[in-house]
Amino acid sequence: MLVVMDQKATTEQVEAVSAAIEARGFKARPIPGGERVAIGVLHNDGPVDSSLFLGLPGVRDVIPVTKPYKLVSREFQPEDTTLQVGDVAIGNGHMTLIAGPCAIESKTQALTIARHIQKAGAHLFRGGAFKPRTSPYSFQGLGEEGLKILAEVRETTGMPVVTEVMDNEHFDLVEEYADVIQIGTRNMQNYSLLRRAGQAGKPVLLKRGMSATVDEWLMAAEYIIEGGNSQVILCERGVRTFVRHSRNTLDLSAIPVIRRESHLPVIVDPSHAAGRREQVIPLSRAAVAVGAHGLMVEVHHAPDEALSDGAQSLHPQQFEKLCRQVRSIVNACRPGPVELIDA
Amino acid sequence: MLVVMDQKATTEQVEAVSAAIEARGFKARPIPGGERVAIGVLHNDGPVDSSLFLGLPGVRDVIPVTKPYKLVSREFQPEDTTLQVGDVAIGNGHMTLIAGPCAIESKTQALTIARHIQKAGAHLFRGGAFKPRTSPYSFQGLGEEGLKILAEVRETTGMPVVTEVMDNEHFDLVEEYADVIQIGTRNMQNYSLLRRAGQAGKPVLLKRGMSATVDEWLMAAEYIIEGGNSQVILCERGVRTFVRHSRNTLDLSAIPVIRRESHLPVIVDPSHAAGRREQVIPLSRAAVAVGAHGLMVEVHHAPDEALSDGAQSLHPQQFEKLCRQVRSIVNACRPGPVELIDA
Amino acid sequence: MLVVMDQKATTEQVEAVSAAIEARGFKARPIPGGERVAIGVLHNDGPVDSSLFLGLPGVRDVIPVTKPYKLVSREFQPEDTTLQVGDVAIGNGHMTLIAGPCAIESKTQALTIARHIQKAGAHLFRGGAFKPRTSPYSFQGLGEEGLKILAEVRETTGMPVVTEVMDNEHFDLVEEYADVIQIGTRNMQNYSLLRRAGQAGKPVLLKRGMSATVDEWLMAAEYIIEGGNSQVILCERGVRTFVRHSRNTLDLSAIPVIRRESHLPVIVDPSHAAGRREQVIPLSRAAVAVGAHGLMVEVHHAPDEALSDGAQSLHPQQFEKLCRQVRSIVNACRPGPVELIDA
Amino acid sequence: MLVVMDQKATTEQVEAVSAAIEARGFKARPIPGGERVAIGVLHNDGPVDSSLFLGLPGVRDVIPVTKPYKLVSREFQPEDTTLQVGDVAIGNGHMTLIAGPCAIESKTQALTIARHIQKAGAHLFRGGAFKPRTSPYSFQGLGEEGLKILAEVRETTGMPVVTEVMDNEHFDLVEEYADVIQIGTRNMQNYSLLRRAGQAGKPVLLKRGMSATVDEWLMAAEYIIEGGNSQVILCERGVRTFVRHSRNTLDLSAIPVIRRESHLPVIVDPSHAAGRREQVIPLSRAAVAVGAHGLMVEVHHAPDEALSDGAQSLHPQQFEKLCRQVRSIVNACRPGPVELIDA
Repeated sequence: MLVVMDQKATTEQVEAVSAAIEARGFKARPIPGGERVAIGVLHNDGPVDSSLFLGLPGVRDVIPVTKPYKLVSREFQPEDTTLQVGDVAIGNGHMTLIAGPCAIESKTQALTIARHIQKAGAHLFRGGAFKPRTSPYSFQGLGEEGLKILAEVRETTGMPVVTEVMDNEHFDLVEEYADVIQIGTRNMQNYSLLRRAGQAGKPVLLKRGMSATVDEWLMAAEYIIEGGNSQVILCERGVRTFVRHSRNTLDLSAIPVIRRESHLPVIVDPSHAAGRREQVIPLSRAAVAVGAHGLMVEVHHAPDEALSDGAQSLHPQQFEKLCRQVRSIVNACRPGPVELIDA
Repeated sequence: MLVVMDQKATTEQVEAVSAAIEARGFKARPIPGGERVAIGVLHNDGPVDSSLFLGLPGVRDVIPVTKPYKLVSREFQPEDTTLQVGDVAIGNGHMTLIAGPCAIESKTQALTIARHIQKAGAHLFRGGAFKPRTSPYSFQGLGEEGLKILAEVRETTGMPVVTEVMDNEHFDLVEEYADVIQIGTRNMQNYSLLRRAGQAGKPVLLKRGMSATVDEWLMAAEYIIEGGNSQVILCERGVRTFVRHSRNTLDLSAIPVIRRESHLPVIVDPSHAAGRREQVIPLSRAAVAVGAHGLMVEVHHAPDEALSDGAQSLHPQQFEKLCRQVRSIVNACRPGPVELIDA
Repeated sequence: MLVVMDQKATTEQVEAVSAAIEARGFKARPIPGGERVAIGVLHNDGPVDSSLFLGLPGVRDVIPVTKPYKLVSREFQPEDTTLQVGDVAIGNGHMTLIAGPCAIESKTQALTIARHIQKAGAHLFRGGAFKPRTSPYSFQGLGEEGLKILAEVRETTGMPVVTEVMDNEHFDLVEEYADVIQIGTRNMQNYSLLRRAGQAGKPVLLKRGMSATVDEWLMAAEYIIEGGNSQVILCERGVRTFVRHSRNTLDLSAIPVIRRESHLPVIVDPSHAAGRREQVIPLSRAAVAVGAHGLMVEVHHAPDEALSDGAQSLHPQQFEKLCRQVRSIVNACRPGPVELIDA
Repeated sequence: MLVVMDQKATTEQVEAVSAAIEARGFKARPIPGGERVAIGVLHNDGPVDSSLFLGLPGVRDVIPVTKPYKLVSREFQPEDTTLQVGDVAIGNGHMTLIAGPCAIESKTQALTIARHIQKAGAHLFRGGAFKPRTSPYSFQGLGEEGLKILAEVRETTGMPVVTEVMDNEHFDLVEEYADVIQIGTRNMQNYSLLRRAGQAGKPVLLKRGMSATVDEWLMAAEYIIEGGNSQVILCERGVRTFVRHSRNTLDLSAIPVIRRESHLPVIVDPSHAAGRREQVIPLSRAAVAVGAHGLMVEVHHAPDEALSDGAQSLHPQQFEKLCRQVRSIVNACRPGPVELIDA
């Protein structure tokens, strides 16, 4: 951390700030410059809260230098993490395709879609049993019945299943049924939920918050790993910007940044970013080309009758096409996605 | 809702979309225009999910017309809501000042600050016992001990207390001690927490999410009221934008919009918006002038030693000054803040 | 356009708004709904200014239905535009690679880089002679001398050259030397410059403004085409958001939207979006995969000594690698980029 | 400037970066920390381009420490600038009200509005003769005829007039007629226009760009002052964010920041920020309370018939009310707006 002093800061102020730094247990190192003095804050074990010094007399600015995360960082673990979910490997050069409906609506619906996506090449089945909805009047999911249907899909198809948990009350229940536990974008900074996920024995798919920086996202993953569960998959799903032609703005530059900063697998959800079916295939191709470890895509056999998110759900034949195109790109990018981060 | 068709949409497509609208239980009314056809969706009881029709063949766009909220709206209840917290009235022409430290650190700290802010003119005391922190390594609050200190502050000073609840596990506990239960910005769309808040018997102070639209914010309040608790106070605290000179961008235009759309009281937290002490007093003046029903401000008797958010905490004498300036502006804006929304 | 009335709007207000609509020369068609009345505005030849009706008594909202652009739209011209610059074709299934330094620094520098990029597979050479710089104290480009060097590069290598024009004073000069005239992001809504570009006889590469919507960007192109020059190439270069890990957020979802809405070629500049070299290759792959018609990339033979934008400039061997990877992806996406927009 | 090295950067890399810093004429001062080395860049006369060092091997980040502006800064000139326009003083404790229509439509219109606003208390008259419009098909202003009408307004009422210049071709003409020359938001980084404004003999009102940081805005002012014209008035008019309830998000926190960083007067345009009449009066009150030196407001005697921006234009009686409320707040904030920046 660097504390930058006002141009007209007095020697006494510089000394007082240095004393305040040392009173917090750090080492202060004043760096006289041409125009002003800056003070380095050294020997900090991890990040320092910038608000500790920002308000002191004579201080103009406080600039963090060290990243706030540890366990998620590539400096902590240089090699890529590989997660194993049933027979499916995630991360570290593997390309994982997750697909399924926004919400589980019925056993028939789930099984129909599951068979379609499996045939097309998906590795995991996704479907919501508990749905976070902006409106209290919207369909909220089938709850435990939905989880039971997911279990049937797994038994019937052999595909592991991904589903969202919304709160700690239902965490045990979701953990019992799911193979991968999803934490949604609105809960990325629900720290109680993150702490509970840290005690889970199953992989956690952590979606990026709608306006989260990469640092905040990695810090959310840090909560889970620090709690004891190192099986975290990150999922970019678009951020909120002024743009209106897609529901959110897919931030694909986050993928090389995450791959450089962290050893965790990172996948992309183009469906929620787009909000419109016709952007999903192009964005899927882009996500794979930029270096993501996988995709999570909404597919519905009859999207016009879906109870939620129909507009962004692919028809099964569109998902087949997506899988073909993605495979071509993965092949084109050989000798392997690992090489993708070399720029 | 209005479904806009492609310029080259066929008659069959228009008819198919109309049929799909009616199959969902609405009434379809095609409106031929000069260049293209639009189809009105009528007799909808509440908002319609735009994704139901967005993906149909020939559809170019779907445009919502009706607002999604009901119980919070001024169309539902034309007159302002007034809440009563102990002797303090909130909303509807009253100006309520809430102040206190970011986090309760000790009994001495809390009581010292409480006496300062009460003398300056604050009506409620705020202080965090459970703190949502970006880093798992940061100070997380004193927990129940903090709640007990809050109870002592109330007993000693007579001021009602505001404190945050982070999850349903601790809701009963927080509800037992707090006079106003705060839901933080990161939990604005934690629907499980909102549902529990809907069963609470105490007022809920609902902070705006960091990238929430006014509609989403009002929908979060709708969850609470729909659950049975109509005592909701809205709190603007800045949104995330590209701007970096303040921690968040205080969106003061939201205040007249909320006051026009909703009957609920709406206050402003300038401290978290600014992130820096020197902006807090100017932004407080602006918030009062724009028509907010109150302020929530961070104050610390020794901000340079605070365990969190010291940089944005006012010194007690600064808070006194803030109260004086705010009172001047309130007086200047007589015959009353109610008139403030008349433009 | 749809004028939505307040729930409590009176019949007189509906009639007055209808009269105001007809007074402007349109046809008003009231559409009674369950809760409120909306009024369709028909027979408008092109877009209607929403502010005409937004302030009228009883009006709650005004919703544009028709897109504001015409000449750039695919409804106006269904087939893709192909531009010819020397031997190079741009748009409509062709993949065009433009590369070169941020600024022309010297004849040696320009020729060295030009030979590198040509060997690697670039089709056009780019380089700034007039540089828009945030600071008046920064290097502003070589001016006409830079243009002369560009002409030498063209003569020596045979590659057409792209360079930026900043104002109408220098437009004739730039037009004389350049094969493609670039209009930069800060000038996207410099309407005087757009009008002059409309009279140019050479293709114009129009960068997206830093916070421009797709509609505004297409309207800027509309200015040029309406002025008489239909040779416009659009260039996505990132938009400004809260994100800080890249200089701007590359909005790749704009590419399928542009390709659906417009017949114009659209390329991507990953260098200015990223601001950091290590993101440029991954983002280039993504841009090609999402369906862009080309790339414009900054390359410098000695980026650590560049007079501007060194951090985002690729080394020549990195550009070679980029070209190889891009070719693989283009091949993988056959039978051709045109098919890319089918989702 | 601080160059932060990777944790695993080698001694050779640190030395190479230090050598590169010194090769650019600066002094390098390595600062060994607990986890990594940072290198201070000293003796820089003004800001250093961060891209010079960002791409060097072993460099993780480059952090600017010094602000890039000079002439506009309060460190350069501690006391507030006061501008004199006819009898009107702007800045430094004065409250200046500028009002008038978006566009000059006719002599009758201009004079009618001018008389209204003068009676209400406005000091300057504003009105556009050259209008930047998103669409080439919209009304573009009366041009020179509009300027002549402005001159008549000045002669008749004695009020100085403000009008926008869009390009250098018309700069002489606008300068001949205007008392204050406005540079619009879309031209804030039109450097050719800024350079020409630096040679003007009249005050320049510089609107903030739609997505400009405060630093970029001040750098635009720096261009004008560096060119020789120190008469600059800054004007905040809202920035582009995800928010949709107002046309732009008025960033009032910029006002105390500007007043702390710069000696220049800074005013607020609430009309373009709001885009809707009913927000203009509340935002005007807030702007004055936060410490702005003035307001620029759109007023039209018959806004429902205005050729542009009718929805955001106040009726004359609304502007009277605005003036009354603003005066009350100014009085309430005595002993003077200068005190407003003391927090």
